[in-house]
Amino acid sequence: MRPSGRTSTVFVGIGLLFTADPQREEIEDAALLAEDGVVRWIGRSADAPPADERVDVEGRAVVPGFVDSHAHLVFAGDRTAEFAARMAGEAYSAGGIRTTVAATRRATIPELVSNTAALVSEMAVQGTTTFEIKSGYGLTVEDERRSLEIACQFTPETTYLGAHVVPPEMTADDYVSMVTGPMLDACAPYAKWVDVFCERGAFDEDQSREVLMAGVKAGLRARVHANQLGEGPGVRLACEMRAASADHCTHLSDADVDALACAGVVATLLPGAEFSTRSPYPDARRLLDAGVTVALATDCNPGTSFTTSMAFCVALAVREMRMTPAEALRAATLGGARALRRSDVGVLRPGNSADLVVLDAPSYVHLAYRPGVPLVAQVWREGLRVV
Amino acid sequence: MRPSGRTSTVFVGIGLLFTADPQREEIEDAALLAEDGVVRWIGRSADAPPADERVDVEGRAVVPGFVDSHAHLVFAGDRTAEFAARMAGEAYSAGGIRTTVAATRRATIPELVSNTAALVSEMAVQGTTTFEIKSGYGLTVEDERRSLEIACQFTPETTYLGAHVVPPEMTADDYVSMVTGPMLDACAPYAKWVDVFCERGAFDEDQSREVLMAGVKAGLRARVHANQLGEGPGVRLACEMRAASADHCTHLSDADVDALACAGVVATLLPGAEFSTRSPYPDARRLLDAGVTVALATDCNPGTSFTTSMAFCVALAVREMRMTPAEALRAATLGGARALRRSDVGVLRPGNSADLVVLDAPSYVHLAYRPGVPLVAQVWREGLRVV
Repeated sequence: MRPSGRTSTVFVGIGLLFTADPQREEIEDAALLAEDGVVRWIGRSADAPPADERVDVEGRAVVPGFVDSHAHLVFAGDRTAEFAARMAGEAYSAGGIRTTVAATRRATIPELVSNTAALVSEMAVQGTTTFEIKSGYGLTVEDERRSLEIACQFTPETTYLGAHVVPPEMTADDYVSMVTGPMLDACAPYAKWVDVFCERGAFDEDQSREVLMAGVKAGLRARVHANQLGEGPGVRLACEMRAASADHCTHLSDADVDALACAGVVATLLPGAEFSTRSPYPDARRLLDAGVTVALATDCNPGTSFTTSMAFCVALAVREMRMTPAEALRAATLGGARALRRSDVGVLRPGNSADLVVLDAPSYVHLAYRPGVPLVAQVWREGLRVV
Repeated sequence: MRPSGRTSTVFVGIGLLFTADPQREEIEDAALLAEDGVVRWIGRSADAPPADERVDVEGRAVVPGFVDSHAHLVFAGDRTAEFAARMAGEAYSAGGIRTTVAATRRATIPELVSNTAALVSEMAVQGTTTFEIKSGYGLTVEDERRSLEIACQFTPETTYLGAHVVPPEMTADDYVSMVTGPMLDACAPYAKWVDVFCERGAFDEDQSREVLMAGVKAGLRARVHANQLGEGPGVRLACEMRAASADHCTHLSDADVDALACAGVVATLLPGAEFSTRSPYPDARRLLDAGVTVALATDCNPGTSFTTSMAFCVALAVREMRMTPAEALRAATLGGARALRRSDVGVLRPGNSADLVVLDAPSYVHLAYRPGVPLVAQVWREGLRVV
């Protein structure tokens, strides 16, 4: 608990500070002053101002808290058997979502809260300080509503994904009518964002547009699951709608890349999904070279990417998507913040939230150089130590 | 510290026990009794006997402590810049080892002990209960000797790898004479194993044979770094020498695979090295289908695989080498034990060391299904909780 009144903490002895601020991205021998939950000053350790509390990190690296802009955390059950079967050669299809829908509908609210809290706690231990949560495993008015009500207990970044997949008991047309009608009415009070899985086997271009437009009309902002399993209309729809982010972007035409760059839509890459479905990775270099803003997120979900580890995603981005360690970390912090249209997190600069991670390493490069190793030593959120 | 006299602990409520014992590999609703550091009994939770201490793991999975049979832990310095350059496109060559040799020679013994202890501690937190440590970053008589003396403080599985690379100040012939002469004399008292990096750029077939034969004559047992960077004589030499293990095995001819199967030499695969050098992975399926015993290990070293995470290696083995989760875990436990010719660890069965890991997951499959997530909840070694 923060005591009433102003409190300040100065971090000194930072071997290498990665700010994610394009103006001054890396600072050696750095210090940072947090006051009342906000970064007040960044400079050299020798110039550190006094503060109520002094934390000497003894040469360790400090990075912004990770911003995980794409996560499906409200669900029940797991899909261990499906995962094992896929690793033995079966292909992924969007239909597997229905397994989790059935388990989620059967679960009680306390069970769903407990499951979500466990994943949120995992995220915190691994350095994630801002995260999005989507609905999408309820697929009835009440099941979607309660999922979002639960999500609101954990984060302001809640996304209405009623249009995750058509539930088995309904036709697509009837379901889209529900998603854009009574389900939207029930869910909008709990959601900041509207999302749709625009993909063969889920929702086509017209259905997806209808879902997004209804959401925007209800005051929500758009983001899109696009071009995961093949080329398709998702990315261009995201650009047409000026969505904050097009997520997955695994299969892109040249026109898709141009559209993302022109529209300023963030391409959110989710390499955990390609890892766990044994699929080809998106081409991050092509996007970066075209001037597209790239974000990295976990896509945490029980079907295709059951990881909460942003560090793992950074390591994969470097190994598999030929991002440099700095590009990958930028995408996991600044990029995620842009995908959520947030300027107060993801970058350590005066005025922003004092959300930071102390690594058990001299450099942020170790996030990729030391894959799989838990390197998070301390996590501070709004200037308070949470791990 | 274990109190004097016998102590016993019974683990109950094990949702799924993976024993790595081919006779009874998986048991649901299991219990395990450890007494005086040794497994005494394994059965169903309902039949659990009484004990001094009762640990209810509440449905979690239990697996044997990992056996990491290939690790280079005694060194100084890191190679962050080399890693970043390689990720930007430079190729790996064996020469990078010399960077670490220079830093290791400059380091004091307390520095080396501290560095090694930090990595050993990381291993423990991640569930590794048996591990090997190689020398190989000293490359002088005294620097190799002190590396092995330090290694002995941490594990009985110490490996003399004077023949890691030829140091820049010597010719290959002179160096092999030293490795098989005064350096061996100085190191043999601290080593159980002799190893050689048989690879283009390191030691050729004749030099490697000379090193191994001298080591065996001095009472050491053979293991070989073989076929990492290309096909070569390493694997066949390992088989000729009846080495315990041929390590890497990334590039194998059909004759190499046959030789491993016929000679009963373990193929120790090190996917962390392929991950961090962006190289093609070894073909585990081909080895398994040929009846070769496969082990997984981290190859922890600052140049090519700076991970201590056996869980990460298991996840890579499933994703990249098409091993099933059970095959990968077997390789990380039983396989590692076989690579060290140990029958007392790596398998949970009566009489073996009570080395076990409680996972924050209902199944060992989660080691691959939840990549990058720290799932180790408890670690017990010789019946005592260490994490």
